[in-house]
Amino acid sequence: MHYFVTGGAGFIGSNMADRLLQCGHRVTVYDNFVTGHREYLEDAMKSGSFTLAEGALEEEDKLAQAMKGADFVFHFAANADVRMGLSHPRKDLEQNTINTYRVLEAMRANGIKRIGFSSTGSIYGEAEVIPTPEDAPIPVQTSLYGASKMACEGLIEAYAEGFGFQGYIFRFVSILGERYPHGHVIDFYRKLKADPHKMEVLGDGHQKKSYLYVGDCLDAILTVTEKCREKVNIFNLGTDEYCEVNDSIGWITERLGYDPELAYTGGDRGWVGDNPFIYLDTQKIRSLGWKPKLTIREAVERTVDYIKENEWLLEAAK
Amino acid sequence: MHYFVTGGAGFIGSNMADRLLQCGHRVTVYDNFVTGHREYLEDAMKSGSFTLAEGALEEEDKLAQAMKGADFVFHFAANADVRMGLSHPRKDLEQNTINTYRVLEAMRANGIKRIGFSSTGSIYGEAEVIPTPEDAPIPVQTSLYGASKMACEGLIEAYAEGFGFQGYIFRFVSILGERYPHGHVIDFYRKLKADPHKMEVLGDGHQKKSYLYVGDCLDAILTVTEKCREKVNIFNLGTDEYCEVNDSIGWITERLGYDPELAYTGGDRGWVGDNPFIYLDTQKIRSLGWKPKLTIREAVERTVDYIKENEWLLEAAK
Repeated sequence: MHYFVTGGAGFIGSNMADRLLQCGHRVTVYDNFVTGHREYLEDAMKSGSFTLAEGALEEEDKLAQAMKGADFVFHFAANADVRMGLSHPRKDLEQNTINTYRVLEAMRANGIKRIGFSSTGSIYGEAEVIPTPEDAPIPVQTSLYGASKMACEGLIEAYAEGFGFQGYIFRFVSILGERYPHGHVIDFYRKLKADPHKMEVLGDGHQKKSYLYVGDCLDAILTVTEKCREKVNIFNLGTDEYCEVNDSIGWITERLGYDPELAYTGGDRGWVGDNPFIYLDTQKIRSLGWKPKLTIREAVERTVDYIKENEWLLEAAK
Repeated sequence: MHYFVTGGAGFIGSNMADRLLQCGHRVTVYDNFVTGHREYLEDAMKSGSFTLAEGALEEEDKLAQAMKGADFVFHFAANADVRMGLSHPRKDLEQNTINTYRVLEAMRANGIKRIGFSSTGSIYGEAEVIPTPEDAPIPVQTSLYGASKMACEGLIEAYAEGFGFQGYIFRFVSILGERYPHGHVIDFYRKLKADPHKMEVLGDGHQKKSYLYVGDCLDAILTVTEKCREKVNIFNLGTDEYCEVNDSIGWITERLGYDPELAYTGGDRGWVGDNPFIYLDTQKIRSLGWKPKLTIREAVERTVDYIKENEWLLEAAK
């Protein structure tokens, strides 16, 4: 198979590229390197089955050209910064919704019909049912990020119905692991490097969070794309576990050998639009035989270890 | 109150403008007259409380300028042609999703926080629960139109959460009545004028449809905007009735005094992405004391009568 991976120089995209190459597939990565890193593709570049196409999704002709000959598109490129939606509302619309439309059109131009898409548990807003199943009641969106990802899902579904596409939609919890580029672990790591004795924590520290290790995430995605053949296949990806921000802080500081005094900003969420709790029902993906190999604690610790070995990320991710 | 009505020269928008003026409000209509009609504003133009602002939503500065001083925005401007989505997939994205974002941004620039929005029962896709309640399981979109309207809902909700907006979202069945500009009644009317003896019907004629009279639709909207004060207020608007396409054909031909032979194209839907059955649970809006005054048959007959008196529409709506 020849896979085309948008955002292939990003966190999940580059891990997926490596995995697909390991499985003997041909891979084309498409990335504009605005948030992606060339360092993430060092292994892939050594493979004869790998092609790097540098470009933005906004460059519609280039995108369609680069996609030629692919059998399957993993569309991971996105504005993944959930927190900043309110300071530039156009960004989620353009980089998520409109760019997903551009990917679908490039596929249509090339006669490619299978797409895997990284959606998010944020589409559930403040879910009434927890753990939240895929067929939860229609949610009210609470962030521009969630709203834009929900819009992408709808586009993919409409293309599936109208143009005979096959859509694989994955609603992730937050993902941790190698090449993790931004989020709470790197934020805390950076703060601790600046001052190992005192650390500010957004919210009250009791915000509950669920995380999944990137390797487990890839296993889940490939299990679904291999086994499922519906027109539209929607799966929550997460673990059965959750933790509090305070747990995670404990694991991080212990791993780094620090014991900082914590200063909480207060309130039950870190920022406007932050979900107090995203915890997904993962029965559907588990019914396919998948289960995560790592606990949340192990995923956090691997992430800390990875950042330690790649401190260049602290600058790059600013 | 000063209301700003996008698509105010359209079917529902112009009826709303007249109604608001009758209630003593100030009204600004914003329309680009691509599908709107100046004829629809003849009554409104006579009022001293009425302002017409001609412009496209794409003209962001003009839009923000025209909106100045308004208290409430009814956003009715949209690509409402559900059937043609597949021939120009960009249209629903641009005219619905992106333009709704533009309306929200113009509101934000002006400090206006209340918005009423015409969504659609099409967002339920092929609903599993019928009649379909507002909190049905997250649907899989089956049309670009439905997908785009769902995306608009998400944007409004995210603005409500993030920017303190108040959103009123109405999921309509098809609306009938005075100024009805396109859809099955006008299609059949046109066909019957061309050949009163024989008429082609898309599908098998057993497609079930539910319709609501435009006057009842306005009553419902204004009941909600008056009584409800949640951050996000979502209401299905429809009747407890439904009919088959064949029923509607019978009422139309009887009203016109024709008795054509019917030729069915076959299949259980009129076009790809057509829902075989949109039938909404309207308990929520009924709980506010609203109920429709007209039956579907009466709504169809009023529409036929209106077209008869306004045959210029047959040309204009082509």
